[in-house]
Amino acid sequence: MGVNVIVLAAGQGSRMNSDRPKVLHPLAGAPLVVHALKAAEPLEPERVVVVVGHGGAEVATAVEAWTPDAMVVRQEEQRGTGHAVLQAKEALAGAEGDALILYGDTPFIRPGTLEAMRDARAENAVVVLGFEAAEPGRYGRLVTDGTSLERIVEFRDATDEERAISLCNSGVVCADAGTLFDLLSEVTDDNAAGEFYLTDIVAIARGRGLSAGVVVCDEAETLGINTRAELAAAEAAFQNRARAALMADGVHFTAPGTVHLAHDTVIGRDAEVEPNVVFGPGVTVESGARIRAFSHLEGCHVSRGATVGPFARLRPGAELAEDVHVGNFVEIKNAEVATGAKVNHLTYIGDASVGARTNVGAGTITCNYDGVFKHRTTIGEGAFIGSNTMLVAPVTVGDGAMTATGTVVTMDVAPGAMAVGRARQENKPGFATRFFDKLRAKKAGKG
Amino acid sequence: MGVNVIVLAAGQGSRMNSDRPKVLHPLAGAPLVVHALKAAEPLEPERVVVVVGHGGAEVATAVEAWTPDAMVVRQEEQRGTGHAVLQAKEALAGAEGDALILYGDTPFIRPGTLEAMRDARAENAVVVLGFEAAEPGRYGRLVTDGTSLERIVEFRDATDEERAISLCNSGVVCADAGTLFDLLSEVTDDNAAGEFYLTDIVAIARGRGLSAGVVVCDEAETLGINTRAELAAAEAAFQNRARAALMADGVHFTAPGTVHLAHDTVIGRDAEVEPNVVFGPGVTVESGARIRAFSHLEGCHVSRGATVGPFARLRPGAELAEDVHVGNFVEIKNAEVATGAKVNHLTYIGDASVGARTNVGAGTITCNYDGVFKHRTTIGEGAFIGSNTMLVAPVTVGDGAMTATGTVVTMDVAPGAMAVGRARQENKPGFATRFFDKLRAKKAGKG
Amino acid sequence: MGVNVIVLAAGQGSRMNSDRPKVLHPLAGAPLVVHALKAAEPLEPERVVVVVGHGGAEVATAVEAWTPDAMVVRQEEQRGTGHAVLQAKEALAGAEGDALILYGDTPFIRPGTLEAMRDARAENAVVVLGFEAAEPGRYGRLVTDGTSLERIVEFRDATDEERAISLCNSGVVCADAGTLFDLLSEVTDDNAAGEFYLTDIVAIARGRGLSAGVVVCDEAETLGINTRAELAAAEAAFQNRARAALMADGVHFTAPGTVHLAHDTVIGRDAEVEPNVVFGPGVTVESGARIRAFSHLEGCHVSRGATVGPFARLRPGAELAEDVHVGNFVEIKNAEVATGAKVNHLTYIGDASVGARTNVGAGTITCNYDGVFKHRTTIGEGAFIGSNTMLVAPVTVGDGAMTATGTVVTMDVAPGAMAVGRARQENKPGFATRFFDKLRAKKAGKG
Repeated sequence: MGVNVIVLAAGQGSRMNSDRPKVLHPLAGAPLVVHALKAAEPLEPERVVVVVGHGGAEVATAVEAWTPDAMVVRQEEQRGTGHAVLQAKEALAGAEGDALILYGDTPFIRPGTLEAMRDARAENAVVVLGFEAAEPGRYGRLVTDGTSLERIVEFRDATDEERAISLCNSGVVCADAGTLFDLLSEVTDDNAAGEFYLTDIVAIARGRGLSAGVVVCDEAETLGINTRAELAAAEAAFQNRARAALMADGVHFTAPGTVHLAHDTVIGRDAEVEPNVVFGPGVTVESGARIRAFSHLEGCHVSRGATVGPFARLRPGAELAEDVHVGNFVEIKNAEVATGAKVNHLTYIGDASVGARTNVGAGTITCNYDGVFKHRTTIGEGAFIGSNTMLVAPVTVGDGAMTATGTVVTMDVAPGAMAVGRARQENKPGFATRFFDKLRAKKAGKG
Repeated sequence: MGVNVIVLAAGQGSRMNSDRPKVLHPLAGAPLVVHALKAAEPLEPERVVVVVGHGGAEVATAVEAWTPDAMVVRQEEQRGTGHAVLQAKEALAGAEGDALILYGDTPFIRPGTLEAMRDARAENAVVVLGFEAAEPGRYGRLVTDGTSLERIVEFRDATDEERAISLCNSGVVCADAGTLFDLLSEVTDDNAAGEFYLTDIVAIARGRGLSAGVVVCDEAETLGINTRAELAAAEAAFQNRARAALMADGVHFTAPGTVHLAHDTVIGRDAEVEPNVVFGPGVTVESGARIRAFSHLEGCHVSRGATVGPFARLRPGAELAEDVHVGNFVEIKNAEVATGAKVNHLTYIGDASVGARTNVGAGTITCNYDGVFKHRTTIGEGAFIGSNTMLVAPVTVGDGAMTATGTVVTMDVAPGAMAVGRARQENKPGFATRFFDKLRAKKAGKG
Repeated sequence: MGVNVIVLAAGQGSRMNSDRPKVLHPLAGAPLVVHALKAAEPLEPERVVVVVGHGGAEVATAVEAWTPDAMVVRQEEQRGTGHAVLQAKEALAGAEGDALILYGDTPFIRPGTLEAMRDARAENAVVVLGFEAAEPGRYGRLVTDGTSLERIVEFRDATDEERAISLCNSGVVCADAGTLFDLLSEVTDDNAAGEFYLTDIVAIARGRGLSAGVVVCDEAETLGINTRAELAAAEAAFQNRARAALMADGVHFTAPGTVHLAHDTVIGRDAEVEPNVVFGPGVTVESGARIRAFSHLEGCHVSRGATVGPFARLRPGAELAEDVHVGNFVEIKNAEVATGAKVNHLTYIGDASVGARTNVGAGTITCNYDGVFKHRTTIGEGAFIGSNTMLVAPVTVGDGAMTATGTVVTMDVAPGAMAVGRARQENKPGFATRFFDKLRAKKAGKG
């Protein structure tokens, strides 16, 4: 039997103190809601429904970008979790199998935990994800009856005895989709908050003689995010886990605590990452590459044996082949740099390709923008680009060609040719002495 | 009744192992003594007297820069806290109201705590600030008599019973100014250290039948700084509090622990600060601006919608209007960049103004220094500065004008005009091939 | 009596998940094995023998680079610590005095601890270094007999009573060299692992009526490294200790936790180090210098009063004299910069010397590489290098000379002369207006 996923993502998140909908705040470079979607991906869900509310259009756009097949439904009024789930009823009409309810502000549920919930469905009509809380505080409590779940009691409605229970409700629920909506139809808003609680379905199910079960996960998985401080703590937790996982895989970090990773960073074994490196989304670093200190990488690929930085910036579309050297104060964007090429100092390579073994001198700039359009620069293999060469795109420099220092290259350069364009140096004896004497005299006169 | 503030700032701080007077060591970008002065500012003191000693001239200069109205008096010999306070007597001659004694090496006292002390003065001739010490160690103890303060006992003079007291003396005292100096006149140096202790005034006051009271604050407020390790710990505490406060105000930090703030950093709601950003003093970032990783800002203003970095440096006087883009390896100093202008790569803009929507190409430099004087560059609106343009100031580029790549601009450019100055590119077929063949042969010959 | 040092460095370190031999993983910029070698240096050993195995050739190369006098011997098979030590027998033939056995993956043993072991040899034939373990876990236990060591028992062979002992074996051993090999000749591999254990020599010694003793050190000293996570923890421990030691010596760190030091970093009193600075090996910073944020230094020297950064990179061979200013996005390599010279923006100085008080303008590049050879640039005193000057090496600019902005300098410039080489600026009225009108029309036509 398949599974269908409902992600509740309608909350305003007013404690974030932000105009941005809560579930769009980024964690490890991806919106929170995407982490929930990604947790469910390994289950290969039949349908995915995201229930949006506050900032619904923005959330829908983000969901579509990451999970194009997801359906987005709108909860116009915020009337409780049960009401939110009901908004997905139409989108799941005719759906077979389970419905699994996740939360857009709860990014750390592990796929294995969700699989355990699905397994537990074999014996239970409804399965709830619980956790042993270190400090149960005001969480809802799971009242169990031997091994099966009797009901979920909200903290404010709990007796002292129930409050002594440390097994708490994560809110994550799995049930047969048909049964779920059937149970939900009996949930009322007859309570202090006037809301429809999803949690009420457990007691309703038990009243019908259906069984309910609990799967227990680590409390850290259920971490929900309500404030920016909690988001920062979640980010720190993500980073520490990601660093530890990469180290176990053989990545060398000089100072792992100073490296910032994205949700999808891939780094190969025996690659070396020095202190103070930031990885944005979409980066792959191959085995044995070296990312030096103070580098910033986004949407790029670094091949085996390549060295990047210190103080390098690789922007989306930067593709470095094996043994490439990218040095300090260098920016590479939307450009392929072929095997063994060197771009070592104070250079901007954008919308370009650089051939194998080519040396790009300090201060080189690909002038890719004419004020309206962007154009490409093509540099062949084994070329030598002199320092401070301006490559006014579109332009091509052939294999084995060279450009003289300080040349503005506006016309193509044939293979093996040299482009030169600069004024001849003239020396004026004594000029500097007279010039500065005059300036200093002026200054003294002023003083 | 008004209040007068006395800041004791004469200590050498020999444990800092520094030639710099202790109270001038910086915390969050401001000297320690300034933090004490700022804590008292909300009380709107009538007079402020800073008692200096070691490095007195330097301390006086710093005090004057931050609190021009403060009076600086010199304690020639270090003869105890009572003696130090007495140095302020003349400066406070005729002063009405309270005298509040603060310390130049104790930066964290909150204004609210000082207000509570002033309130407590209604019932007490002398009010002392105490704290419950987690580890009382060798602090002086506050011996109370029900609710009122009986005396302050130094640790070495304390009985075992007194040493068991955990309420400790912060040293901060508030009393009627006239009473204070009157009480001080009775303090003697008849003790092991041969010093005049300010703390003795409590027992003297009680002996006269005057009442003394205690206000209790958080121990963290009373943190005094004696070593560089303590200073580093204080800096870390400041940073954590400042980051938390900004997050509560709606600032988005990707990794707050990697961002260094100054004492006066202002960042608007929903502004975004990426990892590894350093804020020096005097920075304001408006709501919705984005400060990317590895940026360094001092004395500058970033408006709504603007983006800075990664790897950008904004120096004092950089004023970025709305939607400005400042990119990587760019330095902006003493320059206004108007709405929507872009300065994206490897550029130095100093002593300049850049008009709205103008695009400044990569490698542009405002040549503002002739070796003796600095000059300004003015660029109009909607202009296009080609890559590697040198703007030799003083010079003006008009609205909608452009400069060709690689041009050295020494004369003004009229609106809508183009400035061009470069040698024509010439291609020499086969030259590069022959050139490198020769070089490589030479190398082989050497090898 | 002298001492001879045996460093065991043959282990594969499979838990590191690396192709690199474990003892070559770097800690504070030096291979782990070098830390063991350095710990022994103050003892001025007669002979140093390093026993290598996995990756032996690489380890040998590293050892030779750091301790040229060391002898490297090969352990072909990994048959236990006793077997490893035996490989050093031939290299120590005829050696007088003690043999001290250290480990290539145990970098934190203090020289003072080793001296204490040597002292304890006066009373004992064999001295073992032990530590009181917070969590003894599976460490070998030191079974003592009053004050002397009876035997070392491996955890798996230990009785419950022995397992209750918290005094554990570090593996570090000191014995008379002759006695050591004599005892080792009696060690057998008659145990579960089929290995020759060095630890067995204690029981053998006692069986012969020789005395054995224990020196106890701090557990932190005995930290061995088996995984990348342990290496990262060791690096963090090293950094914290090194930062604290420098602070005690009077170095000012704004945020010590963000500064990365190397094993040999030297920083003078009252030097200032801002946040996010990385020191590679071989850096000396004099008293009163200032290293600003986001700087990266390797193999360089910064003199009193000099300022570096923010965003500066000093590479090996950079020698900054007093009061030099190196600013943002500047790289200095293999170059002497003399007193008071300024290199403030977007510049590459490599293979060069810059004279006193010379001002190097923004965007200056020493073009030191012709594609095959490197050449030097020499700039005199009091010179003024205009912005965007290209210095095509080999080339000399004399004292007090200047170069005009944008000049490519290929010929020497005499003292006091000016070099100029640029096309004259020409202004084309209305050109920019027409140019962009055309481009925008083209874009609109496409849209």
